[in-house]
Amino acid sequence: MAFTLEDLPIRDDLRGQSPYGAPQKHVRVQLNVNENTHPVPADVAEDIVASIRQALATVNRYPDREFTELRQSLADYLQHDLTAEQIWAANGSNEVLQQLLQAFGGPGRTVLGFPPTYSMHSILASGTGTTWIPAQRDDEYRIAPETVVAAIREHRPDIVFLCGPNNPTGTPLPIETIEAAYDATDGIVMVDEAYAEFMPADVPSALTLLPGRERLVVSRTMSKAFAFAGARVGYMAAHPAVIDAIRLVRLPYHLSVLTQAAAVAALRHAPEMLAMVDDIKQQRDRMVTELRAMGYRTYETWSNFVLFGGVADPHAAFEALLEQDVIVRDLGIPNHLRVSAGTEEETTAFLDAMRRVAADQPPVRVAA
Amino acid sequence: MAFTLEDLPIRDDLRGQSPYGAPQKHVRVQLNVNENTHPVPADVAEDIVASIRQALATVNRYPDREFTELRQSLADYLQHDLTAEQIWAANGSNEVLQQLLQAFGGPGRTVLGFPPTYSMHSILASGTGTTWIPAQRDDEYRIAPETVVAAIREHRPDIVFLCGPNNPTGTPLPIETIEAAYDATDGIVMVDEAYAEFMPADVPSALTLLPGRERLVVSRTMSKAFAFAGARVGYMAAHPAVIDAIRLVRLPYHLSVLTQAAAVAALRHAPEMLAMVDDIKQQRDRMVTELRAMGYRTYETWSNFVLFGGVADPHAAFEALLEQDVIVRDLGIPNHLRVSAGTEEETTAFLDAMRRVAADQPPVRVAA
Repeated sequence: MAFTLEDLPIRDDLRGQSPYGAPQKHVRVQLNVNENTHPVPADVAEDIVASIRQALATVNRYPDREFTELRQSLADYLQHDLTAEQIWAANGSNEVLQQLLQAFGGPGRTVLGFPPTYSMHSILASGTGTTWIPAQRDDEYRIAPETVVAAIREHRPDIVFLCGPNNPTGTPLPIETIEAAYDATDGIVMVDEAYAEFMPADVPSALTLLPGRERLVVSRTMSKAFAFAGARVGYMAAHPAVIDAIRLVRLPYHLSVLTQAAAVAALRHAPEMLAMVDDIKQQRDRMVTELRAMGYRTYETWSNFVLFGGVADPHAAFEALLEQDVIVRDLGIPNHLRVSAGTEEETTAFLDAMRRVAADQPPVRVAA
Repeated sequence: MAFTLEDLPIRDDLRGQSPYGAPQKHVRVQLNVNENTHPVPADVAEDIVASIRQALATVNRYPDREFTELRQSLADYLQHDLTAEQIWAANGSNEVLQQLLQAFGGPGRTVLGFPPTYSMHSILASGTGTTWIPAQRDDEYRIAPETVVAAIREHRPDIVFLCGPNNPTGTPLPIETIEAAYDATDGIVMVDEAYAEFMPADVPSALTLLPGRERLVVSRTMSKAFAFAGARVGYMAAHPAVIDAIRLVRLPYHLSVLTQAAAVAALRHAPEMLAMVDDIKQQRDRMVTELRAMGYRTYETWSNFVLFGGVADPHAAFEALLEQDVIVRDLGIPNHLRVSAGTEEETTAFLDAMRRVAADQPPVRVAA
């Protein structure tokens, strides 16, 4: 018998688990993990290369532990009168949220969330020993102010995790819901705005609520709008006291000089990077329109992806799309699949493939 | 009154703490954090830049979660018949060890260590809720086999952390001590070999003990010998079952494409990178000889730094060196300071400055 991890003295709560992760397959049209399918423009890439070349001259030294220039660049990008003291970054928003849970959660503490939501939220809770309390959403995967207040009153969590626009549903998170959640708790309220740049232009971000709310945290990422998933740059904005708390739990020198240099360079080109966002929103809206025309149920989406219902057999549909060189995400929500908006060509490939799936297995009616 | 982190609902065990970190000062001769003071050679840097330029073409996509090419490169570098399945890497060995503690430590579990040792070991224990048990070293900061066995029998830890060569003392860790520790416990034995490349060439690494020892973990870093502190690449070698366990707790996509590309490129140039190691060892040995000639006490060192005793007032000596544009490390060990070996010029600057310090405050006799 081969020696396996079950033969090792691993923690009891890990026994029988399998690691998180979407399949990493080589497929022509990859629309499964909400990436930005547009590459970084060549001139931006060259500016990043130049910055990294410069950073390599001192790569024998530890990086700036406080990544001051990057924090200033992120504050300038976010606007809303934010200062560098209100910004923190890490290797992906996963690490930012892990640090937040290490500082404010942990054994004996709880975090309230509203599934279906970003699946890492509950995994990070478990990894930090924080008890995850799932609460119900309203119809169409929304959360009304009174819904969030009722859940907080019932569970009295130490931390509230909200996600707006929500992954994997794409649905809006009303700013009134965030305000109501904050007023209903003495704990931390974290709003995951990974997809904020894909919201309608006139909708306020949770960043507008930061003044006077010391326990509010807004998490962002460069993975989506900045087409930077491979560079792993997540960040958050909050009161400087929250940032001070994170410093107590962060690993020293967690952000490499390469990451710092690459992110600062990309942020110098924010307008050019964000020009892709409008293209993506157009393709997303086209997906919604055409999926509805095929007979699928869609939801209002403010993100770079579309959740659609009415898929008779999601597993079979996933496989049928894969055979056509298109990969989407089957999240285990009955009769639903999620697809990321691609380039115009990728979106066309997905919609053509989906029409063939619909011909084989006609859409069915689903409850919200 | 300003709002501070003490006004936030942080975890009780964090109250009153301050963040880890050596001062990051701009000083001409920086010998305080055991960096490799030799920059990466220009041709290697250009090869890294070329690899990063290529990686940026797909930076809009998530990185290879399994960093297969990097693991293979690290296995090839380490030799000892290691395969990619036995290798894991993360953003610095701090993250590797944090993951190890998340998988095998945590609340209700203990880790045994032998201070003075790498100060992050106990901080990582605390950050993961693992109880840190400090045990006594022998004279001259050594650990004999019977010492480690007695400590394990007394405390019955879930994990044993050894550090060889030990930081901050530089002292050897006999291979017999590692073998004895492994045989005395059913738990994980982790040997931190951050400074392994600076050991005498004929001394066996803990890697030689891996065959047949499924609970043994050897941690390494590219920060020191590879002059890569700024790139944040720590790694470990162990049985594939240990790597499987780490996958249960790691954050998905924790290693960026930039990190993966840079590390793979640097490893292609291992012989050139390691050529600096011999220079550094020479300067280290010169430091030992000259510090002894000044009347200080030194210890056998197998690393790229020297701990020296007999400093009448370490704080005053630290400040006096700083005034001469030389920074070393005051670790709070009475009458001791630690200094990293620099280039020939930096080493000369330190020794000259130290002679002036010795003239002001003559060396005193210290117990081990």
